[in-house]
Amino acid sequence: MAPPSHCHINANNGVHHNSGGGVPAETETEPPLMQGSRHLDAEEFRRQGHQVVDFIADYYASMGDYPVHPNVTPGFLRRQLPVDPPSHPEPGAFAAALRDVRDLILPGMTHWQSPRHFAHFPASSSTVGALGEALAAGINAVPFTWAASPAATELEMVVVDWLGKALHLPERLLFRGGGGGTLLGTSCEAILCALVAARERKLAEIGSRRIGDLVVYCSDQTHFAFRKAARIAGFHRDSCREVPTCRGDMFALSPAELRATMEADVDAGLVPLFVCATIGTTQTTAVDPIRELCAVAAAHGAWVHVDAAYAGSALVCPEFRHVTDGAEAVDSFSMNAHKWLLANNDCCALWVRRPSLLTAALGTEQEYILKDTAAEGHDVVDYKDWSMTLTRRFRALKLWLVLRCHGVEGLRGHIGAHVRMAASFESMVRDDARFEVVVPRQFALVCFRLLSPEKFGGEKTANELNRRLLEEVNATVSGPYMSSANVGGVYMLRCAIGSTLTEERHVHEAWKVVQNRAASLLRKMEIIYNVLA
Amino acid sequence: MAPPSHCHINANNGVHHNSGGGVPAETETEPPLMQGSRHLDAEEFRRQGHQVVDFIADYYASMGDYPVHPNVTPGFLRRQLPVDPPSHPEPGAFAAALRDVRDLILPGMTHWQSPRHFAHFPASSSTVGALGEALAAGINAVPFTWAASPAATELEMVVVDWLGKALHLPERLLFRGGGGGTLLGTSCEAILCALVAARERKLAEIGSRRIGDLVVYCSDQTHFAFRKAARIAGFHRDSCREVPTCRGDMFALSPAELRATMEADVDAGLVPLFVCATIGTTQTTAVDPIRELCAVAAAHGAWVHVDAAYAGSALVCPEFRHVTDGAEAVDSFSMNAHKWLLANNDCCALWVRRPSLLTAALGTEQEYILKDTAAEGHDVVDYKDWSMTLTRRFRALKLWLVLRCHGVEGLRGHIGAHVRMAASFESMVRDDARFEVVVPRQFALVCFRLLSPEKFGGEKTANELNRRLLEEVNATVSGPYMSSANVGGVYMLRCAIGSTLTEERHVHEAWKVVQNRAASLLRKMEIIYNVLA
Repeated sequence: MAPPSHCHINANNGVHHNSGGGVPAETETEPPLMQGSRHLDAEEFRRQGHQVVDFIADYYASMGDYPVHPNVTPGFLRRQLPVDPPSHPEPGAFAAALRDVRDLILPGMTHWQSPRHFAHFPASSSTVGALGEALAAGINAVPFTWAASPAATELEMVVVDWLGKALHLPERLLFRGGGGGTLLGTSCEAILCALVAARERKLAEIGSRRIGDLVVYCSDQTHFAFRKAARIAGFHRDSCREVPTCRGDMFALSPAELRATMEADVDAGLVPLFVCATIGTTQTTAVDPIRELCAVAAAHGAWVHVDAAYAGSALVCPEFRHVTDGAEAVDSFSMNAHKWLLANNDCCALWVRRPSLLTAALGTEQEYILKDTAAEGHDVVDYKDWSMTLTRRFRALKLWLVLRCHGVEGLRGHIGAHVRMAASFESMVRDDARFEVVVPRQFALVCFRLLSPEKFGGEKTANELNRRLLEEVNATVSGPYMSSANVGGVYMLRCAIGSTLTEERHVHEAWKVVQNRAASLLRKMEIIYNVLA
Repeated sequence: MAPPSHCHINANNGVHHNSGGGVPAETETEPPLMQGSRHLDAEEFRRQGHQVVDFIADYYASMGDYPVHPNVTPGFLRRQLPVDPPSHPEPGAFAAALRDVRDLILPGMTHWQSPRHFAHFPASSSTVGALGEALAAGINAVPFTWAASPAATELEMVVVDWLGKALHLPERLLFRGGGGGTLLGTSCEAILCALVAARERKLAEIGSRRIGDLVVYCSDQTHFAFRKAARIAGFHRDSCREVPTCRGDMFALSPAELRATMEADVDAGLVPLFVCATIGTTQTTAVDPIRELCAVAAAHGAWVHVDAAYAGSALVCPEFRHVTDGAEAVDSFSMNAHKWLLANNDCCALWVRRPSLLTAALGTEQEYILKDTAAEGHDVVDYKDWSMTLTRRFRALKLWLVLRCHGVEGLRGHIGAHVRMAASFESMVRDDARFEVVVPRQFALVCFRLLSPEKFGGEKTANELNRRLLEEVNATVSGPYMSSANVGGVYMLRCAIGSTLTEERHVHEAWKVVQNRAASLLRKMEIIYNVLA
């Protein structure tokens, strides 16, 4: 596939109906519209499926040539697509649609798989992860109960235990240790499920109408997913305590602060319910001290959930195992295998110590749900009772393929390579006196900033300077794409290394771009300074 | 692919390490474990991707030969898989894994794509639906904001308008009419989002601490998804009114009953918040009268959501348009395109009349979320603020492919064919005096039962008789797979026609099996009766 020669796509209205030059040969041979069961015809699937595989392979092969982020303005694509759906497909609709994906859609995408994508956190992709999704989509089962697809349910039970083992999680969170896990879409769902389970347990103890007395806790660095979950679960905004963190603690949640906050709430007649601790916060990958936080929470019978959305993947490496010290006391733990463990979006694993609390809060029984005689009398898992949704996808297949085809050692190698690249980036930043590493790197995210020379206003102008720097870096043709954080009033650039295609050279090139843009920016400021002086 | 010759799979422990007979040729040529960026190598993807496409195509080709539901007992698969993940992949891991999918996993699945799958509701699959999923998984973007993947966000905006138009929804629910839609995973999520938006709006009016005074309404036929959503959203069980329905009303929610219930609540100082109406209930596809329910709700400022999870797909046919009469007054509307519209699991569309209410309840703003300069000053949609989750998949691509490659007329043909088959099944039931159609068919679900002869106890034994009948039907080798409902104390069989591969002959064969099993059952009862008499 040829990458676009420029990022702005051409306006060509009525794309449904154009069949001009460059029409692939397959258009002519595409059979006419199918009816009935032909919508899932094996040979048609084979023919079009091979086209799709080649399309994706071509995309991967040319990935490095795309700008990571497109230069488009809102409405660019809407304006080019018909207002109404087609009544009838145009001839060769599938091939035409693939062409539009190539010519209209891909040029307007942010390419998360680009080796130069360093923004946010990675959306980790792999051949087996993508093909696991494809395989599950092809099988298209709905494993909401054991009976609704026994193998899908059992594979999920096996693979969450495998993953937990690979990540060195405490046995008590695994099925083999009396706990258990499930695969959801996102950490938002995982946190919400845990929170609702905790809420229902506590309300059963203290009285079911006392939701207004419950208090939940996090730090000012906890991902918004937690506050969103708390809001959805019916907690008043005032019932969510965000314990302030500081740079001296590397922005980790302080057990002493948590204890003081909880005690003040208890003194006020309120009931501590839930602590959301994080291993690897979104802004700076801070690690909250799990053991100490659990001890504080235990004094009040509060549930502790660990959100390891990003850094959970790193736990596959023994050298990071210490960050889960004390995790045998947590009530629940979640991580996104789609972020950094080659498992493609989406794949969030949630483990709980007491699955019965989850199913008590989220379970259902209705007559129309088919009882399977084989399942009767057995303690089967019906995953519909483990999450917010009833319908679910067969995510276990993908994760099983990833673990099986890479092995734990393969995943360690994958994570280790990124960590080494990040260490390399970090040391390049440290070696340049114009820059500062704002927070020591823990995993594969480097938080850094350009220092503002004293004569330009020092700290006062630093944030603005770095905002400009990020803009210029991201606007560089064939350059890296990064994002930012603002912690404790300090604006910084985030370079998150984790794209599967990223190699050492991309990291070096990225740093060169940052240095060059910084030099240019400082030169411009010098000129302005001299003019004004 | 050869289907399994029997449903019980062979116990062959340590499946990771077997590489005995029948190893496909590709094993020998599979290159050794890749490192780093090789995990997403274009040529490796191409090679393995073609294997997966052929695997799925072979599965479709042999689908009719699988028993719909496997004859397995709990633990059958867990016992055959290693307890721990592999440290290193075995040689030819990918090919070996595919063999295990074929030999261990598929024989333990319920085959939702079987032409003889008539249970629950369909999980509608199509070539373009499955390949749309594959394509999105290959691209693997995370379109949580416009900037995070502009084309993905805009395609979603276009395609929800297309779908709404195709389903004859009121313009005010579409972007073009001032509303707007989004693609979520399931109806559970859609209902929860709408409920939280309604709750936040109402609490802003009446006082943010009054969640305990709010009341939500549904019928005794409303899907459990609603009660689950209400529970998650912090509503007390006593705050959910399930209005009883009756057979005379075809189990629809009665506006008069709703009005009386709401007025009683208001008299008790409570605040009506939310009505969940259904078009096509899960048990019998009852249709609640939207216009009248909206009028009742409007008197109390209550939000009306329409859950058309299943029957929403049928709205593509003009002959069903009347079931949405009055929908211009609803606040939100959702349907699952993955149920019956060829869009593969998962794909739930949610439309709201006032998107600002959704984003006010679910929105977030944080510094680390990259602002795109191109988006500044534009009224862009950031879909993370439209749902419970931040991370999301690029579902729009699949739905766009489905609409484009089938066209609205193609989808009408698809739905129409199933409706005709269901009508055919229904008339066969009616033509057999031993049976009864319990509720007149509305879409493509037939609810029926075997009448219990008076001498066997009539009504008193009818439920047990039909339970036995369903068990025997589902246990028939190469037979259909159906589910049941229990409404108003009447147990009935459900024959939901909607599998893409189902043809008229499968429906006729299914009916023959039901007749034969019923005849056999009645004979057995006759013998027992005579012995006892």
